[in-house]
Amino acid sequence: MDLKIELKKRADFFNIQLEKFIQGGSPETLYNAMRHLPLAGGKRLRPVLSMISCEAVNGDIVKVIPLSIACELAHNFTLVHDDLMDKSKMRRGMPSVHIKYGESTAIIAGDLLFAKAFESMHKTTVDLNVFKNVEYGLIDCIREISEGQQLDMEFEKRKMVSEEEYFEMIRKKTAVFFQYVAEAGAIIGGANSEQSNALSQYGLNLGLGFQIWDDYLDLSSDLETLGKDIGNDIRNGKKTLIACHCLKNAKGEDKKILDKIFGNLNATDEQVKNVYNLFRKTGSVDYAKEKAINFVSTAKQALNVIPDSNAKQILSGLADYVINRKK
Amino acid sequence: MDLKIELKKRADFFNIQLEKFIQGGSPETLYNAMRHLPLAGGKRLRPVLSMISCEAVNGDIVKVIPLSIACELAHNFTLVHDDLMDKSKMRRGMPSVHIKYGESTAIIAGDLLFAKAFESMHKTTVDLNVFKNVEYGLIDCIREISEGQQLDMEFEKRKMVSEEEYFEMIRKKTAVFFQYVAEAGAIIGGANSEQSNALSQYGLNLGLGFQIWDDYLDLSSDLETLGKDIGNDIRNGKKTLIACHCLKNAKGEDKKILDKIFGNLNATDEQVKNVYNLFRKTGSVDYAKEKAINFVSTAKQALNVIPDSNAKQILSGLADYVINRKK
Repeated sequence: MDLKIELKKRADFFNIQLEKFIQGGSPETLYNAMRHLPLAGGKRLRPVLSMISCEAVNGDIVKVIPLSIACELAHNFTLVHDDLMDKSKMRRGMPSVHIKYGESTAIIAGDLLFAKAFESMHKTTVDLNVFKNVEYGLIDCIREISEGQQLDMEFEKRKMVSEEEYFEMIRKKTAVFFQYVAEAGAIIGGANSEQSNALSQYGLNLGLGFQIWDDYLDLSSDLETLGKDIGNDIRNGKKTLIACHCLKNAKGEDKKILDKIFGNLNATDEQVKNVYNLFRKTGSVDYAKEKAINFVSTAKQALNVIPDSNAKQILSGLADYVINRKK
Repeated sequence: MDLKIELKKRADFFNIQLEKFIQGGSPETLYNAMRHLPLAGGKRLRPVLSMISCEAVNGDIVKVIPLSIACELAHNFTLVHDDLMDKSKMRRGMPSVHIKYGESTAIIAGDLLFAKAFESMHKTTVDLNVFKNVEYGLIDCIREISEGQQLDMEFEKRKMVSEEEYFEMIRKKTAVFFQYVAEAGAIIGGANSEQSNALSQYGLNLGLGFQIWDDYLDLSSDLETLGKDIGNDIRNGKKTLIACHCLKNAKGEDKKILDKIFGNLNATDEQVKNVYNLFRKTGSVDYAKEKAINFVSTAKQALNVIPDSNAKQILSGLADYVINRKK
């Protein structure tokens, strides 16, 4: 099995359906703004995961597409609003929606993506009780993502954040969505409750591992490239697992340096590098890597109750990919 | 029947249920921001209309409450994002959400209101087919409101907007929501299709009349108070029915004055007053008033198929109120 080819096959199939679903619409500027990010590509991890999860319980992949589209659009809705909040200028190698279309249109385009997500969900042809439950799951997800996004912002302003608080934040901000797509895909595929629970646990732990690895990658790429954006996370006091661990474990002189530089918008590049070195010295980088590996291992264990199949192999491979990827 | 008392009775009952539904939640700041506008009062026109519509077909008012809450929260979601786009500092006599909680939290609070609206909708206890249809109606409404909001913004930048385009804009931005609450309330109340269609037409025409009258009131209050915000709509080139009519009918020297001042951010108070006078001279103010009265009359006619009841009287009174109110 070639993981990349298997993922791409599904992403390609998904993209055709997505493009069809979001074509047309008036006023044109609004619909172009709404389509901008969904058509800019991206890994399609969430919709593809919902598809493979459906396949893993021997479900019909065509039946899950309305859910897959709903999840990708809902994900893009959060990204459009996130970029606006973070004043991020680029996304997926393109100008972000508010840069290209202005802030007002970006807000409306995000809202429209939200509505379109539920419009797609309504095309799901399953038993109405199942439909209602699966749809409620997406609503609940968006509520938790909103809460996680707010926590992430609030944490930046705080001196200390405990590991438990950090895990709760990334669970809400990132992992519940992976949990949802894996579980909902399985339910639409006709999973029994043991299977849907297993895939729910797979998604949750995959999501946690994914987010921790993401933060680790951001840090590593900063260290390698030493580009102009170097240290933004340090200067903003972004509470990654690495930072939380270091804030807790740095002692004496190290702690003083950390308190002075971490979250200091005016820190020099030299000072930022000192913090990077501290992250390593306290073992925080290795600690975070190990945690990510553990979550991914738990995700793979959850697959034990799923019958062997090509789809199960892809899920397993996807878990490994999460902690082996370089970007 | 005392219209004010009848409306207030229902708004009071609604407010108790609303407050219960939106209490609690964490992180607290986000939930306070989410509650800020719903708890700031307001006329509750939309939820109360859904309740009376339900009553008018002899439905159980308790059964419609989850829908009523969903509609009020969805309406508030659009207001939070609108205020942010318009940079409006006040709403319902209070600082708007982005002023009190910051822009980022306001964006998330709006998104959360959207999710909470659908969470409430899911509490509706009706046949699942009915639930799915009624919920889809709300999704469709939010799509049309987004389109209407974008049109409104785009029209401000245009020199001319036809009457047809204006009606399409206010239909989407305002009237479809009135149409939806009246129709959905009736459906949940167990209306037959003749009744739900009639209440749908009632809501649509009420909404059109409401929006035209709103624009007329904004203009009149400007003229009366001559406050510091006088002429903002003129300077921004806001395409109200009055403006569209005047742009089409002003001739010669009048047309030149209009072209120079309308949509000119640097227009003096004196110039703005000239435009007000032109609005009267071309008969545009009277024209808009008459249009509003006609829509309200059509709304009332739609009620003919509804059996006589206290609720029907309130609906009729509400229609009259729309074009008699002073604010």
